[in-house]
Amino acid sequence: MKIGRVIGTIVATRKDEKLIGTKLMITQPLDLDLNPLGESIIAVDTVGAGIGELVAFVTGTASRIAARKMDSPIDASIVGIIDEIDINKSLLGNK
Amino acid sequence: MKIGRVIGTIVATRKDEKLIGTKLMITQPLDLDLNPLGESIIAVDTVGAGIGELVAFVTGTASRIAARKMDSPIDASIVGIIDEIDINKSLLGNK
Amino acid sequence: MKIGRVIGTIVATRKDEKLIGTKLMITQPLDLDLNPLGESIIAVDTVGAGIGELVAFVTGTASRIAARKMDSPIDASIVGIIDEIDINKSLLGNK
Amino acid sequence: MKIGRVIGTIVATRKDEKLIGTKLMITQPLDLDLNPLGESIIAVDTVGAGIGELVAFVTGTASRIAARKMDSPIDASIVGIIDEIDINKSLLGNK
Amino acid sequence: MKIGRVIGTIVATRKDEKLIGTKLMITQPLDLDLNPLGESIIAVDTVGAGIGELVAFVTGTASRIAARKMDSPIDASIVGIIDEIDINKSLLGNK
Repeated sequence: MKIGRVIGTIVATRKDEKLIGTKLMITQPLDLDLNPLGESIIAVDTVGAGIGELVAFVTGTASRIAARKMDSPIDASIVGIIDEIDINKSLLGNK
Repeated sequence: MKIGRVIGTIVATRKDEKLIGTKLMITQPLDLDLNPLGESIIAVDTVGAGIGELVAFVTGTASRIAARKMDSPIDASIVGIIDEIDINKSLLGNK
Repeated sequence: MKIGRVIGTIVATRKDEKLIGTKLMITQPLDLDLNPLGESIIAVDTVGAGIGELVAFVTGTASRIAARKMDSPIDASIVGIIDEIDINKSLLGNK
Repeated sequence: MKIGRVIGTIVATRKDEKLIGTKLMITQPLDLDLNPLGESIIAVDTVGAGIGELVAFVTGTASRIAARKMDSPIDASIVGIIDEIDINKSLLGNK
Repeated sequence: MKIGRVIGTIVATRKDEKLIGTKLMITQPLDLDLNPLGESIIAVDTVGAGIGELVAFVTGTASRIAARKMDSPIDASIVGIIDEIDINKSLLGNK
């Protein structure tokens, strides 16, 4: 999983019929300081995530498992709303 | 899924026979400002995308699901034509 | 596998029910000098890794195999606690 | 698929027996101007590609499908010889 | 496959039991000049590779196929010892 923030949605009238009814959320991956990191993706929402929420998302087969749609052309899904992140960054300086 | 723009096609006379009849579109991934981002890919069109259109594409197993060709050597497919992108970028500044 | 250090945890009350009971650890990939390298991920702990420990983690299908949960939306798992790394970096200069 | 150029071969006497008889081609991914982009890979040739040819290659499961060897440790295959690339780069400037 | 050099090993006493008995080799991906390129990985040795040897390695499902352990949490394996690399780099300048 990666940490991201839901920042928008896309509308696609013409699409694979297996995607009808899915909520397609633009999700921006974030670093540990919650700053944008890398390219945004379009993830299927499976947990009722709202715009602006901090989420955990998965990619690949895990995203079809999350959507309970193994036969849909999905390659990224939101699987959790993050309430809290506890990090001890000082650990990164210790060898 | 990722956001891209269809910018061309390739012609390949000698190819895997399972690819015969597929439309191979050169697709450029875009960032949220719709500027090119990262390397272009050759994606199979499954929704009738035309040159210049803004699309959503998937990679990996999802692309074979999209093409309804699980036994074809496909690793990227266009799955939707994007009509509209709604983003609230100010959310990226909020921690 | 890659080398990483467990630097924290996330709390997600609202999440895919298949993730209930998994320990979600923020893991920072490291280079050979044990400095941070690339973006951190949220990996499922399958070996009792503690905060601060040096670990080996896998991604993709291997992570669901590690978790013994093939039907869970998992795409990264910790599979070992690293006791020792033996590297001969001088080999990198030899052609 | 990605665009690449076959620039060489490797010889490996000691290798997985499932790879015996495969043609292992060093393939350099290219950008749209056909300049090298990113790291080269070793791809299995499935279409009779020669040194110097412009090719389309796939990665992951698609590469085993291409090789018709689902039980071989293959993660990249050449699936087509590119005759022609038609691109309209001006489309990348249009938002 | 990618080209790499085996530069070390890791010791992990506490690990997934399916990994017991596997040889975990730190492998550094190399560019075509055999200089380090990108992050090192921990790959399972399936061909008797020694420290310092130039190898071909695969990632993903192909690595479990190589190890003949489809139910092990493996995501990278060494599949060949490279005896010789024949490259014609001048081809990269030809469009």
